[in-house]
Amino acid sequence: MAISTEEGNAYAPAAAATTNYDDEGHQRRKRKADRWWRIRLFHGMVNDIRRRAPFYASDWTDAWNYRVVPATVYMYFANILPALAFSLDMFSKTDMQYGVNEVLLSSVLGAVVFAVLACQPLVIVGVTGPITVFNYTVYDIMSPTGTNYLAFMCWIGLWSLVFHWILAITNSCNWLRYVTRFPCDIFGFYVAFIYLQKGIQVLERLGDGAPFYLSLVVALLVFAIAYICGELGRGSLFKHPVRVFLKDYGTPLTVVFFTGFVHLGKMKDIPLENLPTSTSFFPTADRGWFIHFWDINVADVFLAIPFAILLTVLFWFDHNVSSLIAQGTEFPLKKPAGFHWDLFLLGLTTGVAGLLGLPFPNGLIPQAPFHTESLCVTEVVLHDEKDKDESNNNSSSNNNNNNSSYEYKATHVVEQRVSNLAQGLLTLGTMSSPLLVVLHLIPQGVLAGLFFIMGFQALEANGITAKLVFLARDVALTPAGHPLRRVRRRAAIWLFVAIELVGFAATFAITQTVAAVGFPVFILALIPVRAWLLPRWIGEDELGLLDEMTASPFTMESVSGGDGSAATTTTGQDRGSSGGGGGVLFGRSEGGTESTTAAPTSEEDLAELGQNHRNRKQQQGLTVGSETHTSSSTARRRASAAVVDEKKEGDGVLR
Amino acid sequence: MAISTEEGNAYAPAAAATTNYDDEGHQRRKRKADRWWRIRLFHGMVNDIRRRAPFYASDWTDAWNYRVVPATVYMYFANILPALAFSLDMFSKTDMQYGVNEVLLSSVLGAVVFAVLACQPLVIVGVTGPITVFNYTVYDIMSPTGTNYLAFMCWIGLWSLVFHWILAITNSCNWLRYVTRFPCDIFGFYVAFIYLQKGIQVLERLGDGAPFYLSLVVALLVFAIAYICGELGRGSLFKHPVRVFLKDYGTPLTVVFFTGFVHLGKMKDIPLENLPTSTSFFPTADRGWFIHFWDINVADVFLAIPFAILLTVLFWFDHNVSSLIAQGTEFPLKKPAGFHWDLFLLGLTTGVAGLLGLPFPNGLIPQAPFHTESLCVTEVVLHDEKDKDESNNNSSSNNNNNNSSYEYKATHVVEQRVSNLAQGLLTLGTMSSPLLVVLHLIPQGVLAGLFFIMGFQALEANGITAKLVFLARDVALTPAGHPLRRVRRRAAIWLFVAIELVGFAATFAITQTVAAVGFPVFILALIPVRAWLLPRWIGEDELGLLDEMTASPFTMESVSGGDGSAATTTTGQDRGSSGGGGGVLFGRSEGGTESTTAAPTSEEDLAELGQNHRNRKQQQGLTVGSETHTSSSTARRRASAAVVDEKKEGDGVLR
Repeated sequence: MAISTEEGNAYAPAAAATTNYDDEGHQRRKRKADRWWRIRLFHGMVNDIRRRAPFYASDWTDAWNYRVVPATVYMYFANILPALAFSLDMFSKTDMQYGVNEVLLSSVLGAVVFAVLACQPLVIVGVTGPITVFNYTVYDIMSPTGTNYLAFMCWIGLWSLVFHWILAITNSCNWLRYVTRFPCDIFGFYVAFIYLQKGIQVLERLGDGAPFYLSLVVALLVFAIAYICGELGRGSLFKHPVRVFLKDYGTPLTVVFFTGFVHLGKMKDIPLENLPTSTSFFPTADRGWFIHFWDINVADVFLAIPFAILLTVLFWFDHNVSSLIAQGTEFPLKKPAGFHWDLFLLGLTTGVAGLLGLPFPNGLIPQAPFHTESLCVTEVVLHDEKDKDESNNNSSSNNNNNNSSYEYKATHVVEQRVSNLAQGLLTLGTMSSPLLVVLHLIPQGVLAGLFFIMGFQALEANGITAKLVFLARDVALTPAGHPLRRVRRRAAIWLFVAIELVGFAATFAITQTVAAVGFPVFILALIPVRAWLLPRWIGEDELGLLDEMTASPFTMESVSGGDGSAATTTTGQDRGSSGGGGGVLFGRSEGGTESTTAAPTSEEDLAELGQNHRNRKQQQGLTVGSETHTSSSTARRRASAAVVDEKKEGDGVLR
Repeated sequence: MAISTEEGNAYAPAAAATTNYDDEGHQRRKRKADRWWRIRLFHGMVNDIRRRAPFYASDWTDAWNYRVVPATVYMYFANILPALAFSLDMFSKTDMQYGVNEVLLSSVLGAVVFAVLACQPLVIVGVTGPITVFNYTVYDIMSPTGTNYLAFMCWIGLWSLVFHWILAITNSCNWLRYVTRFPCDIFGFYVAFIYLQKGIQVLERLGDGAPFYLSLVVALLVFAIAYICGELGRGSLFKHPVRVFLKDYGTPLTVVFFTGFVHLGKMKDIPLENLPTSTSFFPTADRGWFIHFWDINVADVFLAIPFAILLTVLFWFDHNVSSLIAQGTEFPLKKPAGFHWDLFLLGLTTGVAGLLGLPFPNGLIPQAPFHTESLCVTEVVLHDEKDKDESNNNSSSNNNNNNSSYEYKATHVVEQRVSNLAQGLLTLGTMSSPLLVVLHLIPQGVLAGLFFIMGFQALEANGITAKLVFLARDVALTPAGHPLRRVRRRAAIWLFVAIELVGFAATFAITQTVAAVGFPVFILALIPVRAWLLPRWIGEDELGLLDEMTASPFTMESVSGGDGSAATTTTGQDRGSSGGGGGVLFGRSEGGTESTTAAPTSEEDLAELGQNHRNRKQQQGLTVGSETHTSSSTARRRASAAVVDEKKEGDGVLR
């Protein structure tokens, strides 16, 4: 609480400094409002930096908070362990072109660059499941031709750098206004299944003897114990610090424990497959770090272009969606986002990774949102009956067996750069000789269990799962206040979920084929499906309840065209209007639906929010329109309205 | 609902018939009230039969109810599968003196005798964990002497028959008034741990190769899936019939599935240990069914006496506690209990089992209460806020995530003899050749998983666990209405639980030694500990909240001395009085504590209960005193009071 107020004060001068820029540019921008196709180069990137720069110092000073410690440890493990599992996957599927060292260094590269330079330092960057699929599919395609694989990958990276930069310069991230929970959920579902599949594949490779079954036992136990730790963390048993400890360190400690456990008793005689590692700080293959990208046919240089396009599509979507989810509506963030600038940085890391022969790093799902979540300072709210109506929109709620209910509410997020940087440096340390030996001790069964728990937890948190659970639930036992009950036709929910599942199935299916490199296209195609096809089948009011914006309007300021442009002039109230662009989507999501927004309800929070809005207004004064378009609670709207009254600056866009 | 009303009418004539007997004997019995040591031989047994006989016909006609089908199937599996696992245990630890056939026949014997003849046909009888321990400990002691083991066991059975009958004739079950939840919970805890331990032992015997680890995997999966089925059955997902199906058949189907599962894919090459079986309908050892009990030294005949005493102590406690728990306060039973008569029957089956060389059957925990539970007709009650105060005392409640809560309430129990008999006959059928082959296919890993889930579910339902959970729960998140919050000193709860755990640990520890046969003494010693020691350390008011009677006063009528005797003349109101005997305990438990009584609150239930009370009053007219002593809800008391007013028979004992 105290820290927020402090922040409010600390930022006020900086905010005031930027006010002028906003006011004088306002009219000019309004004139250009309906001409959205006029690309104002660099506009998004520059705005991102301008918006974020005032907070840069506080990004370091705010890190003086306990949450940073568990977040760092948790992220270190949550980032490195799947990365190791993916490295195992790539190691075996690319004939040892990529190994543990490449994957670790890629994570370090991503972590350092994004922690220090990004506008969105909460987004954890590393090696993902999809890029693993991409890498070994390219290997499958190119290795028969005899091409130097790493040089080819380097060219993909370099071309992709160019494409990324083009996309960043042309403010392409403004299209994120069309990215609702719909494609995010499908992609999240897809990634979760990739995790589960990788877990199974890790086990499959272990044959059928005692080592296989012991690994299976270990995987199941790792899964079960990590799951129990998570449940205890969300439950009502034990005192608050114990619960937080279990939640924060449960999974890492489980991994550590089982790495030792398999050497106990009768298990010590079973030869388990461990993680293959190589010499510390050296590439896995016999080469220098720098790729000889000139050792390749000119034809292959150009052949890399289509692959680079696919990679760029994947990264544009994957990284931005990671950022969106990591800054989702459920997190009460107070520092602005910056998608354009981060896309530019992503191009940089992609090029550099290509030159060093590393797998390309990008935003990690589900780690990025887990990072934000682990930085949340929560408080327990006990509910009396009177709170009932207001409690639907909260992040995670849990009831015990005696009819008095409670829930965890995030009061604020420790927004800083240190946890991301620190986990990156820890990863760098892991590349040193003694720690690499430790890594080598981790049995593959433990990694499989880790894949299972990560995949399962990602599924648990997914919107598709939530809708499936709603549909499977006995109607008689579904609380009257459930948001989805407001959808008129139950068939509409079925249809929506069915489309989501078809989208997921198509993407997942193509991943199993040699055409796997093409899967980003499927994912990207979901955005127009949502924008143009879905409204033909499902009513707008229903869609409004079924889908919503992923991130709050505050976060979306970065991609709202950089000013009070066309999209944001359509207010949420005129739903019937044809209002082009993102406005329609914004308007639709007003209903609130499954919103996990931690709607602040206490007087204190309201005050904080009001103050915060004021700060933001003073800094940007741009996005009042989008403020009213969103699914956030009435409290927020009330606060926002109050701010407008106070400022008396006649924002025509508001009404 | 309909059926209850029917019952009410159906029993009325029978009830009227017994009224005279009660009225004329009343004054005579009152005169003898304070001379409790005058043992009126056969009195308990005769009263049990008199009380239960009017319901005998309805015990068969009431079976025309769907619940009987799943209860039969569930009990068949819940009885036979652990029995098989125990048979495996005894098979290996008694050098094949006992095998599957003996265990099955013992279950059949118990089921047929108790289903047809018992006063408490809900109590499932079979081979328990403790008797397994008893049997192989006796084997360990006697086999070095070269004595004919089965003949020795036969003599134990015959002596035990005599002791059982003596105990039955002398109304020993009246001492059950001192058996509160305290020893029941400890014994239940002990049995649950025996289950878990047996599961581990089954796995331990499988060596350390691939078969062992595959069995471990199977055991974990059986546990997990049976657990999930149980949770789904209690949850809000799926429609009611699906939930009931999962709850009823989940565990059996899991066992069947995994018996087949281990033959799939790469697992089919792993040689798994199956359940050893022998020729159908023949004894496992090379002998006839009838034991040559004369083939033994005369000295050994008398040496069997101390063992028979221990066995009798075990059975007196175990069987009666099984009966108590199976007729616990949470089940809205309407037919009277009869402990004395059932103890007499138990002597009979013990003797017969001895003559046939079978392990002795007795009441099964946790199967017996599971049987009653599976016969409960439940309804879902959705709670509004106004119900809050009344909802603390319900059997199983569950909340979903949206603050509207619901719970399952047992409206009535299908009390009949058919499910018990049918599961016994199914077990008999299992002894035939084709089914015995099927049994032989069950991998031991599946049995281990079954042990785990049975033990775990027994622990979940245990009162000690409930108190531990209460103590572990964050005080801030414990609902204000939790019954244990009324205990003044938290230390008192800790002390109570600590004593319970010490009692459990002592019993469990001795079971691991060659002195294991002595463990019944430990268990029995808990009763005086509760009656004399605990009140010195913990205040009476606190004890009243921490402990309570296991069965409802209605069930306890069988053991309340058979008349309005000393114990029942002490009313609950004069707590301060020294009131000897069971009255003290009854009085103490008035507080209500953890009571899981399904307190009927609806008008309909009240009416039903009122009618029911009237019937009971008309039959016995004895126990008005104890009616007021109990932890049942005000609703019940009000109903009882109304009955008294209506009868205008000036029961001086009431006030």
